[in-house]
Amino acid sequence: MFPGFFMLSKNRISYIRSLKMKKYRERHRQFVAEGSKLVIDLLQSRYIINWIYAIDEWLEKYGTLLEMKHIPFSPVTETIMERITALSTHGLVLAVVDIPDISLDIAIVENELILALDDIRDPGNLGTIVRLADWFGIGTILCSGTTVDIYNPKAIQATMGSVARVDVIYGNLAAFLVNASSLSTIYGTFLEGESIYSADLESHGILVIGNESNGISEHVQKLIQRKLFIPSFQKEQGQGGHPESLNVSVAAAIACSEFRRRKI
Amino acid sequence: MFPGFFMLSKNRISYIRSLKMKKYRERHRQFVAEGSKLVIDLLQSRYIINWIYAIDEWLEKYGTLLEMKHIPFSPVTETIMERITALSTHGLVLAVVDIPDISLDIAIVENELILALDDIRDPGNLGTIVRLADWFGIGTILCSGTTVDIYNPKAIQATMGSVARVDVIYGNLAAFLVNASSLSTIYGTFLEGESIYSADLESHGILVIGNESNGISEHVQKLIQRKLFIPSFQKEQGQGGHPESLNVSVAAAIACSEFRRRKI
Repeated sequence: MFPGFFMLSKNRISYIRSLKMKKYRERHRQFVAEGSKLVIDLLQSRYIINWIYAIDEWLEKYGTLLEMKHIPFSPVTETIMERITALSTHGLVLAVVDIPDISLDIAIVENELILALDDIRDPGNLGTIVRLADWFGIGTILCSGTTVDIYNPKAIQATMGSVARVDVIYGNLAAFLVNASSLSTIYGTFLEGESIYSADLESHGILVIGNESNGISEHVQKLIQRKLFIPSFQKEQGQGGHPESLNVSVAAAIACSEFRRRKI
Repeated sequence: MFPGFFMLSKNRISYIRSLKMKKYRERHRQFVAEGSKLVIDLLQSRYIINWIYAIDEWLEKYGTLLEMKHIPFSPVTETIMERITALSTHGLVLAVVDIPDISLDIAIVENELILALDDIRDPGNLGTIVRLADWFGIGTILCSGTTVDIYNPKAIQATMGSVARVDVIYGNLAAFLVNASSLSTIYGTFLEGESIYSADLESHGILVIGNESNGISEHVQKLIQRKLFIPSFQKEQGQGGHPESLNVSVAAAIACSEFRRRKI
């Protein structure tokens, strides 16, 4: 908090811009959220919003909501918005938000479907996975320390607001899986194993998704209890090679869809 | 073709660079493909490769294949590669390839599952959809004229070589659907309709996928015979809003998976 801070000083502008970088997000435990849907979703969540910067047009619509919730805000011009945005096209609103400390409840491990991401590198993929988890009612995603930061501007944008509803927790994935293995079944997506279409899938479990190029890392593979694969229907081997894999968020989507379909 | 052309002149470099832009791809009916997997897949397909530029390391491995197939090539330095690449990190090989004239066989409309894309704007989404179509053995994708060009560098990269095996055809989608409606069932993905999990899906048909923000356009909607939706399993309405939709390539993936699962 910057008490009495209502105008955007040079220092404040460079502070906001610095939060594009993980180093500064970690140091200050804050991140930037942009765009109306995302900011409104965060406002209605347990996230603590430190400050909102918005174009007048947006404040006319949502100013009362901010006052009701005691969120400090400053009107800014388009020119300032262009300077502070981390996106190629700025939105009507930008929020500086505290990074929450999230811990994992053991009851969630025992009773819910959880995703575990082993070294997802692309922010767009991570954001898309958070978004689809939300759609499928998955409230917890565990990430290896090598997985891209969810508060990366591109990742958070790709969640389309779902980051407000899905807990993304970073840590030592292998250590977690060792501890979790007696509490829940550990599934993983591979290019071989049981066909996901006919596999008997429980309504709770831990589903491990691997890296874009290399899949699930060797030391995590050893902890997988059930290997699942998505069958390919590719045409007979003929012209022009063959597809080697699916995009990681696409594979995650199909796997989540299969888990959920069985609940109906 | 540039007979006798073996060195990279300034003109040739700017020609290759110009192919990043749709205007020049359309004018010259050529595009650029980068990276070993994509180029090898194209080499084995019906695409006609005009010229290959590669780092020595790549030519040592594949030079004989190029000679066998009578493909002209030039060794280039890393510096030149950096100048001609359309990507943020260049690969070992770059090919200039002719854009093929692809027409649609009526037997395909009658007997196969086809995707129809109505105004997909993001090149990454388009490439990802081509890649997953390939995985699910879908050989034809029809695109509205407003859909992003598949030969856009980002789109082609996201196909991971699948562009060599999937025909992507642009045209007037509504006019096509009017003609096709007596030959095949026209399905579309919506946020309402029949649940895709329990719907009776044929092994052939036309599946329409809409724009990232606006879904299927009004005039195309009127031509859809069966509306499908992917059920959401979101938690009870509580904190932090709710997810409005799935990413378009994720929705396409789940829909294709559902069509193919029924074939097993």
